[in-house]
Amino acid sequence: MRARDLLTAFPTVTADTPVIEAARLLAGQDLPGLIVVDERGLPASILPGTQVLRLAVPGYCLDDPALARVVDEAHADAFASSLAGRTVRQALPPERSPGRRELPVTDPDATVLELAALMARTHSPLVAVVEQERLLGAVTLQALLVRVLAA
Amino acid sequence: MRARDLLTAFPTVTADTPVIEAARLLAGQDLPGLIVVDERGLPASILPGTQVLRLAVPGYCLDDPALARVVDEAHADAFASSLAGRTVRQALPPERSPGRRELPVTDPDATVLELAALMARTHSPLVAVVEQERLLGAVTLQALLVRVLAA
Repeated sequence: MRARDLLTAFPTVTADTPVIEAARLLAGQDLPGLIVVDERGLPASILPGTQVLRLAVPGYCLDDPALARVVDEAHADAFASSLAGRTVRQALPPERSPGRRELPVTDPDATVLELAALMARTHSPLVAVVEQERLLGAVTLQALLVRVLAA
Repeated sequence: MRARDLLTAFPTVTADTPVIEAARLLAGQDLPGLIVVDERGLPASILPGTQVLRLAVPGYCLDDPALARVVDEAHADAFASSLAGRTVRQALPPERSPGRRELPVTDPDATVLELAALMARTHSPLVAVVEQERLLGAVTLQALLVRVLAA
């Protein structure tokens, strides 16, 4: 079994996609994350859902849990509106930052072991599969576990 | 809208649950993670799926992607069998380690903003909800996004 046998089509976004659209994609299709592609259509980043949420949360709430509590309920409900006008670019890790982590991207010949090691190492439940400068789709942790446990 | 309005029942495991059973639970129900409870039934840890995978991957593959590739395909397919005899305990972060991170656990009165901040801060797509020493269930990133985007 190789990555090509576990592939599924996977929606992509770009750095210019509005965050609200990215959030709808995540929620509507129950995706474990999003593949952000560059102008060539190749994965520039893999964005976990929690990273998209981060854009909607004011910094003072991220830093101090107690401050999130004192914001009244009605205001808290409206936090989705704070996403308006933001794009995926703002959720991306800074380019060429020294601590920039390995991307969960591999090729269709990757074995199950390679896929599992990549997911474990990058903490990503989603691996993008690329062949000859073309994004073929993704392997999810879910698909990997189902097939490995059935074997 | 509060955590109590977004709650779903969520399966739990203990530190003594076999890893293979935990993996079947993750895969079979397409869960974003697992709640590990202590002897009182309270959350001791929230385990993302990628952390469960980590147990199945030999250390040399985690450290060096190239080594995972040289393991032949048949052997790689059989890696699930390496889970045999392991328990969830081995996937848990060490107790009282100085860098131990905040647990994504809250109470039923938490606002949407608090839930979002907690998920973003702990990088967890899953928050356990506890009231009076009792685990009520969990709020998932998926449930939070669906409700917030519909509002």
